[in-house]
Amino acid sequence: MVNIAVIGCGYWGPNLIRNFSSTPGAHLAAVCDLNADRLRKVSEQNPGLHTTADYAALLASGKVDAVAIATPVSSHFPLAKQALEAGKHVLVEKPMTATVAEAEELVALAAKKGLVLMVDHTFAYTSAVRKIKELVDTGELGQLLYYDSVRINLGLFQHDVNVLWDLAVHDLAIMDFALGQQPVAVSATGLAHLQGQHEDVAFLTCFFESSLIAHFHLNWLSPLKVRRTIIGGEKKSVVYDDIEPSEKLKIYDRGASVNEQSLESMRRTLVDYRMGDMWAPHLGQGEALRAESTHFVECITQKKTPVTDGRAGLRVVRILEAANESLKLRGAPVKIKAGA
Amino acid sequence: MVNIAVIGCGYWGPNLIRNFSSTPGAHLAAVCDLNADRLRKVSEQNPGLHTTADYAALLASGKVDAVAIATPVSSHFPLAKQALEAGKHVLVEKPMTATVAEAEELVALAAKKGLVLMVDHTFAYTSAVRKIKELVDTGELGQLLYYDSVRINLGLFQHDVNVLWDLAVHDLAIMDFALGQQPVAVSATGLAHLQGQHEDVAFLTCFFESSLIAHFHLNWLSPLKVRRTIIGGEKKSVVYDDIEPSEKLKIYDRGASVNEQSLESMRRTLVDYRMGDMWAPHLGQGEALRAESTHFVECITQKKTPVTDGRAGLRVVRILEAANESLKLRGAPVKIKAGA
Amino acid sequence: MVNIAVIGCGYWGPNLIRNFSSTPGAHLAAVCDLNADRLRKVSEQNPGLHTTADYAALLASGKVDAVAIATPVSSHFPLAKQALEAGKHVLVEKPMTATVAEAEELVALAAKKGLVLMVDHTFAYTSAVRKIKELVDTGELGQLLYYDSVRINLGLFQHDVNVLWDLAVHDLAIMDFALGQQPVAVSATGLAHLQGQHEDVAFLTCFFESSLIAHFHLNWLSPLKVRRTIIGGEKKSVVYDDIEPSEKLKIYDRGASVNEQSLESMRRTLVDYRMGDMWAPHLGQGEALRAESTHFVECITQKKTPVTDGRAGLRVVRILEAANESLKLRGAPVKIKAGA
Amino acid sequence: MVNIAVIGCGYWGPNLIRNFSSTPGAHLAAVCDLNADRLRKVSEQNPGLHTTADYAALLASGKVDAVAIATPVSSHFPLAKQALEAGKHVLVEKPMTATVAEAEELVALAAKKGLVLMVDHTFAYTSAVRKIKELVDTGELGQLLYYDSVRINLGLFQHDVNVLWDLAVHDLAIMDFALGQQPVAVSATGLAHLQGQHEDVAFLTCFFESSLIAHFHLNWLSPLKVRRTIIGGEKKSVVYDDIEPSEKLKIYDRGASVNEQSLESMRRTLVDYRMGDMWAPHLGQGEALRAESTHFVECITQKKTPVTDGRAGLRVVRILEAANESLKLRGAPVKIKAGA
Repeated sequence: MVNIAVIGCGYWGPNLIRNFSSTPGAHLAAVCDLNADRLRKVSEQNPGLHTTADYAALLASGKVDAVAIATPVSSHFPLAKQALEAGKHVLVEKPMTATVAEAEELVALAAKKGLVLMVDHTFAYTSAVRKIKELVDTGELGQLLYYDSVRINLGLFQHDVNVLWDLAVHDLAIMDFALGQQPVAVSATGLAHLQGQHEDVAFLTCFFESSLIAHFHLNWLSPLKVRRTIIGGEKKSVVYDDIEPSEKLKIYDRGASVNEQSLESMRRTLVDYRMGDMWAPHLGQGEALRAESTHFVECITQKKTPVTDGRAGLRVVRILEAANESLKLRGAPVKIKAGA
Repeated sequence: MVNIAVIGCGYWGPNLIRNFSSTPGAHLAAVCDLNADRLRKVSEQNPGLHTTADYAALLASGKVDAVAIATPVSSHFPLAKQALEAGKHVLVEKPMTATVAEAEELVALAAKKGLVLMVDHTFAYTSAVRKIKELVDTGELGQLLYYDSVRINLGLFQHDVNVLWDLAVHDLAIMDFALGQQPVAVSATGLAHLQGQHEDVAFLTCFFESSLIAHFHLNWLSPLKVRRTIIGGEKKSVVYDDIEPSEKLKIYDRGASVNEQSLESMRRTLVDYRMGDMWAPHLGQGEALRAESTHFVECITQKKTPVTDGRAGLRVVRILEAANESLKLRGAPVKIKAGA
Repeated sequence: MVNIAVIGCGYWGPNLIRNFSSTPGAHLAAVCDLNADRLRKVSEQNPGLHTTADYAALLASGKVDAVAIATPVSSHFPLAKQALEAGKHVLVEKPMTATVAEAEELVALAAKKGLVLMVDHTFAYTSAVRKIKELVDTGELGQLLYYDSVRINLGLFQHDVNVLWDLAVHDLAIMDFALGQQPVAVSATGLAHLQGQHEDVAFLTCFFESSLIAHFHLNWLSPLKVRRTIIGGEKKSVVYDDIEPSEKLKIYDRGASVNEQSLESMRRTLVDYRMGDMWAPHLGQGEALRAESTHFVECITQKKTPVTDGRAGLRVVRILEAANESLKLRGAPVKIKAGA
Repeated sequence: MVNIAVIGCGYWGPNLIRNFSSTPGAHLAAVCDLNADRLRKVSEQNPGLHTTADYAALLASGKVDAVAIATPVSSHFPLAKQALEAGKHVLVEKPMTATVAEAEELVALAAKKGLVLMVDHTFAYTSAVRKIKELVDTGELGQLLYYDSVRINLGLFQHDVNVLWDLAVHDLAIMDFALGQQPVAVSATGLAHLQGQHEDVAFLTCFFESSLIAHFHLNWLSPLKVRRTIIGGEKKSVVYDDIEPSEKLKIYDRGASVNEQSLESMRRTLVDYRMGDMWAPHLGQGEALRAESTHFVECITQKKTPVTDGRAGLRVVRILEAANESLKLRGAPVKIKAGA
């Protein structure tokens, strides 16, 4: 039995509490938050659950084997570091840290200590994204040509991060998991409409060494809610619409065969594009968060590396940090360090 | 009666032929094309219509008052210049020219000669785009916050231009007409998947002096066809979906009031966003091309300046030329000359 | 404080338990079910809540003022009758009873005893249906021409009732609430594909004294889920799509003006139909069940007649009973008794 | 070369004129209409085409081998009869005649004379409907359970027929072609909102000897345009949405297995329903009318029986005539004569 403490019970914490309460092999040992009101509310809803505002004492108590951190981004690093140093396994919300340096330090520390460091890239545990990865890995899509993501809606402004760190992080985590390729440079543009605040509209292009280009389209001010990704391959293309209640994935039978034929024949092929069937695979309804918490427990007990480990978290933070730099330069390209 | 010759009868020319054949006040005097097959076909379908491959002779003949040019982009400039020098009014396909220098020369020449120079920004004559302009001009949307356009589909590769010059030109023409603001700089990214060919996927951000940001999303390889523009204003927002058979425009009652309140109260406002009604105005079904050809004739006979005059064409070419430069720089910002 | 017992904790009961636990002015005094397993589960989730399998003893105990009955249809009548005779107010699931005779007896008994008898026509408490009623009552739609409802999906076969009693009951309750007109006859057709079972596909037409016709389209075997009602009026028409996450109601500016003009001019009007704007009013997000339970408590404490009283339940059962008779006659019309 | 005269050039005739002008093996020999204005217009658009108002003289002239009749329904019978008696092959608009007796007479006459009698059930020549027939014929759908069609829109009132004869005729022709089963009885309801006019809203149920039920939903007053048919089979189900620009057909992998299992296990199966993939086959874009005119010519020259022969026309008229009778009886069932 893995004893787990949930750290932070604001917006996302209650999901972790609910989830670890019923994950096989896990025991929800404690909940920690600095806000007394929140703790009281958690206590009322979970009679008998240990709650505390003293994180250091909790780590020292010997009551917990692992922590799941769901606090504001800026506190991820100090809390995770403290836990790793105390010998605890760590699951941390996304984005994993506020800087690349912090992420690198956590990854190194976890490796040195032999502890599990996992980042909560939840979408990687959904059946839709797993199906996409399968289509990529088996070569069913052919060589990838573009990754095009739109995630827009009316959203709460975030105090601590801009719309890229709030929304694009989901899509970057999906891309990192599903494509197995890392960008070498980014160009980002955007605008903060509120004086002194973070960007609420932003656009991000990722360049790769291969003939792939990725683009992310984020907006907190849109009256429409759109969550759609198109992945174009030479053989087939996938449209992933996360708002669709069913048929989230549609696979189009023809992609774009753009590198073999003469331009003239290619043109005919392109006209043929629409000719293929469309297919919407059935997707299981299992809850992603449950799959993820189960995976976290397994990684701890069986000494496995998580699918979304600290290095995945680091790779996503690298893109976000470079994007912030490019944003300030009005789209000028910024290189991304390889590795991780 | 204005005697008009249509120059070029490939993809778009037949629409101009059909249209000027029945525009009140216009007489379709001739059709000119270098391709004998095409000319023969036009003759068969339009018995009695004068066809010729000799452009210079046509201009010299005294039979025509104006020309409508629908040839490949690279020939727009020499053909339009020749016509203006011969004292003919000119309607030219978009993009107006292949370079800013060419566009500037045509604008100056038309002004000097006192001739009408009009660019075929067809969307400016649709009831949907006219309605958008009305919403902007009357202040119904409030201060504009963002312009977000997606135009993707499976398309024929173009020999002579990239996907920006082929597709974004429509959206830039719409924006130029509807917003009455000109960008001061652009950042563009994209990729040419076919060796030695033009970009088939591209993304363009336009920066303005005001707190407006515009973004254009173009793709010739998409299995989905999307043609949707969202214009976010402080008071209201418009969604323009050109694929919808009816209800192309939806106006959302609440925009984003982001500059007056404290962050705390703003957050509440943002949550209130979804609270407004949505309204889809009825739009007339009149054909845009007919409105445009009628307008061209009127401008000639009544010595008016076209709604989409040469300067509008120049402004759009300025953005496209800057975008091409930024594309080569992987998104680095490129300034746009003011004026026009 | 009104002490309420929930009777039956199968599919719908837990919603009532959750709801009455937190309705102002209500105290959830007990839960009754014949199934020991279900009772145990309820106890676990609601520590301290009184549970019992002995309905008679519960009614006799003096601990409850009212019961909310969520059991199979066939038991509604005996349970409700027993409660009314014991002086308890009653909220009963829809359809209110299995026969018209039973419904009439309950209505008479409640009136005699001066008790509240309310039927759980939940949709009458949604903001969408309330808006429809407002549009009808204010005359905004003009004279009503047709009511056209489709409710189809893959559904569980019901042991005790056919698809009309399972699905059409929702729509008949909506129509009863929103239109304020009662049908004078019905014609119903359908088919039971499973030997010895109830109809799984059915169609119902309701005839009125006015120039209104209503039609209901029900199917448990459809791969598509559709829940859409169109209400056509002379002035305007409403489309109510309950599956839409937002914009559930769309109001079309032009209805069908079919009774004033000559046929020739009417034809022109009909072509004009599409000319009007469309408008989607904002609808509040309040939970219908909460509004309903609050209303039940108010009716008890303030001696009001419920919006969905026993007579509303009776009117709906009258239509359903007539529909069953017509079903057996392959659509032959069956009259409905007026009144209630 | 088959010499064909088009009779009637109102709403549909021009399509036949355009079509037979370019059908291989066909020669458009003449156009006949009683309206001089229409004839003049046709002449202008088709220089050299013989036009006449004298039908009898045309039939006697020896200039035509076949006629294509596109006049009001009531005149189909006398015109077709006259042509058959004159030894001409006949293609006639749908519905084939205004009564069953007339249809029977035409079928008998054509058989006696050895002439082709074909009815213009255009949808039978579309790739979507042909694909449906293929799915039915190959058993891919399994045993058919229901046929559910909705065809509603704002439409012009018809002088001579009600909404069933105007709209349902399309769906009855599709069903006749695709299912290969004929109903044994019908029940129809509807309403004429305009004094003295035909029904503008109507609903039709068809009963079969097998465990199939079909339903048709027609409305000229709907602000929404819907043209959707669902065909439920034991193995798979098809949704045919004729308004979709692409993906008109969607095939759901699981139908309703309702006759083998015990009720308990079936219930589980039903919950599994949504589990299957969805598949949208590519459909060719060939024009149905062209396929149909080519087929007409082939039937004449190769002495084949048309896919939509006079007996198909008769079968559809039988359903429509019975439906009209049931309409008057407010849904009472009316039997349909077998045969044809």
